[in-house]
Amino acid sequence: MPERSDWLKKMETVVGNKGLSQSEDDMAPWLTDWRGRYTGAAQALVSPGCTEEVAEIIRIAAEYRIAIVPQGGNSGMVGGATPDKSGQSVLLSLRRMNNIRNIAAADQLVTCDAGVILQNLHEALAGEGQRFPLTLGGKGSATVGGLVSTNAGGTQVLRHGAMRALVAGIEAVLPDGSIYSGLAPLKKDNRGYDLKQLLIGGEGTLGVVTAATLRTVPALIDRCVAWAGVSTPQQAHRLFQFLNTEESQALEGFEIVPRTCLDAVLSHIPGTRAPLEKPSEWNVLIEIVRDQASAPDPRDRVEQLLADAIGKDLILDAAIASSESQAEDFWKLRDSIAEAERAQGPALQHDISVPVSAMADFIIDAGAEIERQFTGTEVAAFGHMGDGNVHFHVKAPPGTAAQPWTEESARSISPAVHDLVVAAGGSISAEHGIGQTKVDELERLSGSARLGSLRAIKSALDPHLIMNPGKLVPLASWKPAS
Amino acid sequence: MPERSDWLKKMETVVGNKGLSQSEDDMAPWLTDWRGRYTGAAQALVSPGCTEEVAEIIRIAAEYRIAIVPQGGNSGMVGGATPDKSGQSVLLSLRRMNNIRNIAAADQLVTCDAGVILQNLHEALAGEGQRFPLTLGGKGSATVGGLVSTNAGGTQVLRHGAMRALVAGIEAVLPDGSIYSGLAPLKKDNRGYDLKQLLIGGEGTLGVVTAATLRTVPALIDRCVAWAGVSTPQQAHRLFQFLNTEESQALEGFEIVPRTCLDAVLSHIPGTRAPLEKPSEWNVLIEIVRDQASAPDPRDRVEQLLADAIGKDLILDAAIASSESQAEDFWKLRDSIAEAERAQGPALQHDISVPVSAMADFIIDAGAEIERQFTGTEVAAFGHMGDGNVHFHVKAPPGTAAQPWTEESARSISPAVHDLVVAAGGSISAEHGIGQTKVDELERLSGSARLGSLRAIKSALDPHLIMNPGKLVPLASWKPAS
Repeated sequence: MPERSDWLKKMETVVGNKGLSQSEDDMAPWLTDWRGRYTGAAQALVSPGCTEEVAEIIRIAAEYRIAIVPQGGNSGMVGGATPDKSGQSVLLSLRRMNNIRNIAAADQLVTCDAGVILQNLHEALAGEGQRFPLTLGGKGSATVGGLVSTNAGGTQVLRHGAMRALVAGIEAVLPDGSIYSGLAPLKKDNRGYDLKQLLIGGEGTLGVVTAATLRTVPALIDRCVAWAGVSTPQQAHRLFQFLNTEESQALEGFEIVPRTCLDAVLSHIPGTRAPLEKPSEWNVLIEIVRDQASAPDPRDRVEQLLADAIGKDLILDAAIASSESQAEDFWKLRDSIAEAERAQGPALQHDISVPVSAMADFIIDAGAEIERQFTGTEVAAFGHMGDGNVHFHVKAPPGTAAQPWTEESARSISPAVHDLVVAAGGSISAEHGIGQTKVDELERLSGSARLGSLRAIKSALDPHLIMNPGKLVPLASWKPAS
Repeated sequence: MPERSDWLKKMETVVGNKGLSQSEDDMAPWLTDWRGRYTGAAQALVSPGCTEEVAEIIRIAAEYRIAIVPQGGNSGMVGGATPDKSGQSVLLSLRRMNNIRNIAAADQLVTCDAGVILQNLHEALAGEGQRFPLTLGGKGSATVGGLVSTNAGGTQVLRHGAMRALVAGIEAVLPDGSIYSGLAPLKKDNRGYDLKQLLIGGEGTLGVVTAATLRTVPALIDRCVAWAGVSTPQQAHRLFQFLNTEESQALEGFEIVPRTCLDAVLSHIPGTRAPLEKPSEWNVLIEIVRDQASAPDPRDRVEQLLADAIGKDLILDAAIASSESQAEDFWKLRDSIAEAERAQGPALQHDISVPVSAMADFIIDAGAEIERQFTGTEVAAFGHMGDGNVHFHVKAPPGTAAQPWTEESARSISPAVHDLVVAAGGSISAEHGIGQTKVDELERLSGSARLGSLRAIKSALDPHLIMNPGKLVPLASWKPAS
């Protein structure tokens, strides 16, 4: 091991021997993203134990112009927490900061360190009769800091919003090492530009989130899950409008599943079975919940709403889960789509959004257009239709090997998908973020107002460009105005 | 009239003869804020008719370095829309842009120009069975653009959030004249720093909001308003926690009124009468609403909740409005406090917030501290307790003339109030903004992280500092780093 440079020695003084490692073995698990798409290198892995230590580390980094790559659970979808290959960065792990500072159940708030793992937060709140209404596949590793920094979404956004709506306060270390102390949960605060809003979804490019005060809701009393068959996404959308008008306060899930996706799950995932006797071309999973005693019984509501929906020609058929176990079976059909698709062959995934009212046409029209342009491909769009957000997967022609198809298609099919999204007024990143994966596409598809603002804000708040360089903000081809 | 300079001629070419005036008579009504606290001067009043005209005006202003002061209904509370006295600015009125572009009732969205007046928006939506759940005293003049730019609040924030929560999309002209086209209502969009969030509450210092897509909710089916007596703000807070746990989805109003304020209203406002037989030291106005047919009857809920509250020792006494007319009477007691106070004598008003859980103690402790420091004054704190936001009024000793007391006290009492707010983790501006009124106090009371970020963002997005100079961002004593 080479002799440590001045700044590394200073950092070690801050975090102690155990908080800093240059060992390949220690660093390796964190230098490749969980899906194995990106591998980087770092000068050191630094793991501070408290906010003040983070601040001191960033001050040293600012002084010596060392790039900092913040990392939580390393379960992001766009390589946002993986350093580049230069090996010049410091990987800053927040995982040691995993203290739930305070649960204020009567105020429906919880304050916790950035390194708290989502599942641990869920469990701690359950013990207090509360619920943090955001969950996702990586909940066993995803941290609060990462969820904030990526403005994470999931299946409960419909009723509760994404992280942006759930963050009541934030503490962060800014690129000059100053501490932004904004944990106080102020429901009203009009003191100008809201730094919190920039840090949420900022992907660590403007500072390091060290703690957050999050909104909680009462624990669920009960829920009712139903599976409905519809003939088209347009019919699904009309069903959504109906349910949202009648029961928006209790509608917590509205997911669309095309027949091809359901068939893939039924073929490849053991123990699954079709919810409806007669298959429909499109399916919708509906969840109605109750978390206040005065609210109507969710099962009564679902029965009534589905009966009305049949009368209004909004569904073809429906099944209501008769038990919590069957409710979980219905959700498993939805949640296993990605796994079932992997068993079928290579596919390109796109996390995109358009206005809710435009999604049905987008699914049909953009799907047809991609299949027309790229012969042999098949499009499967599924997911959070109530949020105007689907996972738009383009499957390779049957029998295609993963490579070079995947790599080549990322350069041809993905831009074509994104062009269609932009034409529909949508976003090329609905919930996963930009990270490394989409930074070129963001540059290609953003107007001067968006791009100029992104760059101006980045340069203003991180003038030495030390915070998570190469992520989110397209700077590669950019020269500052002289 | 002097010959018009080049840039004025260019602006006139853009907006036409009717869209530009230098006449004193035309300009005068808009050069003094509605409360008569600030009077400024301007080179011209420019009234564009569409977004493209706004963009061209701003491009000319940027080229010639002309300061632009955007203005909607001129009903702000902090002088944010009044130009300074230099007479060098252009007053940019958005009032001609008053088109409601599209009401999408099934999607619960409305898109309208910045100059649409709030009351007109309410009326247009009522015709479609929808409601925009934000209202305030100035609704007959306040415009959508002003409401967005000040992140306006009001009494319905409790259930629906402030403007920030109600803006689904935004269109704005940035300081270089580029148009930010973000009207598409994307529920999920993770393309980096959210410019929309900076423009909301940006007070026109980062650009001119020209249109917005706003979220609407179904029109009310019915509501129930109650007036409860409590002995202390702490008891009021426990009552709030109880109601919020049991009925957060329907609780749309929770306002606190001290006995002194109610007495002032009963003495000075004709046609008012006490809701409770026996006066309480503190009062709470509660509103429970229903806007979905499946929700419980609000009157049943209020009766049940108040009966439970008596059993739990959360209230002393209560009256439930037996008709819509009586509900309006109860609200009038709350809404007339400011008017009644004006009849009593001079008072300094402070629009402040602290965490909801800290408000009860703040009302008592800060009130006592101010009355101790400033002999003869009397503090009256009332308003949006469910949001942690009260109007903290400090009344002059009886018989005091308005001046010089008001001016002198603004320099002594207000800083003392603000110091107590900061000590409680609160905000010196809950819903009114910073404008001209609080810019010095914002500078005095902000840490380097907040202040540095404010200045950096302002300078980055408005490098020539032409957008609403002197408002919101403390720049007077600031020199950019060389």
